[in-house]
Amino acid sequence: MAYRETDRVRERKQATRETIVTTALTLVSEGGFNGLQMAQLARQSGVATGTLYRYFPSKEELCTAVFEYATEIEVAQVQQQLQESQQNIPEAIANALTTFATRALKAPTTAWALIAEPVAPEVVAARLHYRERYAGLFAQAIADGIAAGSLPEQDSNLSSRALVGAIAEALIGPLAQHSSAAPEQAIAHSIQFCLQAITAKPYSMTRSSS
Amino acid sequence: MAYRETDRVRERKQATRETIVTTALTLVSEGGFNGLQMAQLARQSGVATGTLYRYFPSKEELCTAVFEYATEIEVAQVQQQLQESQQNIPEAIANALTTFATRALKAPTTAWALIAEPVAPEVVAARLHYRERYAGLFAQAIADGIAAGSLPEQDSNLSSRALVGAIAEALIGPLAQHSSAAPEQAIAHSIQFCLQAITAKPYSMTRSSS
Repeated sequence: MAYRETDRVRERKQATRETIVTTALTLVSEGGFNGLQMAQLARQSGVATGTLYRYFPSKEELCTAVFEYATEIEVAQVQQQLQESQQNIPEAIANALTTFATRALKAPTTAWALIAEPVAPEVVAARLHYRERYAGLFAQAIADGIAAGSLPEQDSNLSSRALVGAIAEALIGPLAQHSSAAPEQAIAHSIQFCLQAITAKPYSMTRSSS
Repeated sequence: MAYRETDRVRERKQATRETIVTTALTLVSEGGFNGLQMAQLARQSGVATGTLYRYFPSKEELCTAVFEYATEIEVAQVQQQLQESQQNIPEAIANALTTFATRALKAPTTAWALIAEPVAPEVVAARLHYRERYAGLFAQAIADGIAAGSLPEQDSNLSSRALVGAIAEALIGPLAQHSSAAPEQAIAHSIQFCLQAITAKPYSMTRSSS
């Protein structure tokens, strides 16, 4: 009789995989992706190193899985904030950005690892994919805002990308320096930047000519 | 007598190194960093493969050198636009961003390689370094604008980072898709986003409450 994986075996494998990924995420929160050691991870996950490599044949594959797991959580948070429909759309966008930024500055090493740390090309590719996901969520919100008349006409795809780039880059500084200097102000200013960009009247090149 | 490198030898080595880097940049403009093949590069640079590896022991080192060479040119362009002092500061910033964006969309594969292509961690680290350089230039311009009264009060360090993030991310879309669909509009909209962000009055959360 050929070997057939039972549901129970599949479940146990899934549980082991999850343990490895969540344990790895804890290690990433302490030392980034570059601080992640396979031997230490195996020990802390309670599996043999050989077992770890059966689940993740390379560190790149492991890091990509950890990146995806952690980023899915952040995307879900943004999505939830944007869908709170009792508020108007500019405020929903501001709330989503604030949630993203606040979570990032509360776990600066993790945020740095997810957003900017020099990592393997596989993880960089996953970053691009998830930035598309974020941008897609904001693009929908901006389009809804335009339709509802609470945001001025604009190219929602471009605005949403610019929004994601602005917020990520503005936060890399404080994250990079592990600076806790007034993170609230950094967040407030970054959100202001984004909100001014999407709500303001087009800047006229002649307006402030001197 | 110990071997001593003469000026002439040094100059020749420098010239060979430059030939390799500029030839590599041409190849990157065709197929990105991942399309760059050491053997092909040696052939097109007119050096033996062994010689190429004496100059650049690994592809990562070569890619980092090419990245730095190409990005220095872009940084110099931005710097020059910002220093044109006969114009007011918001316009100088708009011109610098326009120059950056226009050059990027004219050489989309190169721009994609420099800004976003999944590459080795060494090149990702160089990207972070150069984003600091760009942000530093814009931070100075914004600070000058605030001092001159042509820009409202704001944290120039955060605004400049957000600016760099916004313009880079807004352009990744068109670059990624090698889309030539209305690049002028994409550029104009991205610049508008940035200019509104730094020139507008702070967005008040209650302004558009409904």
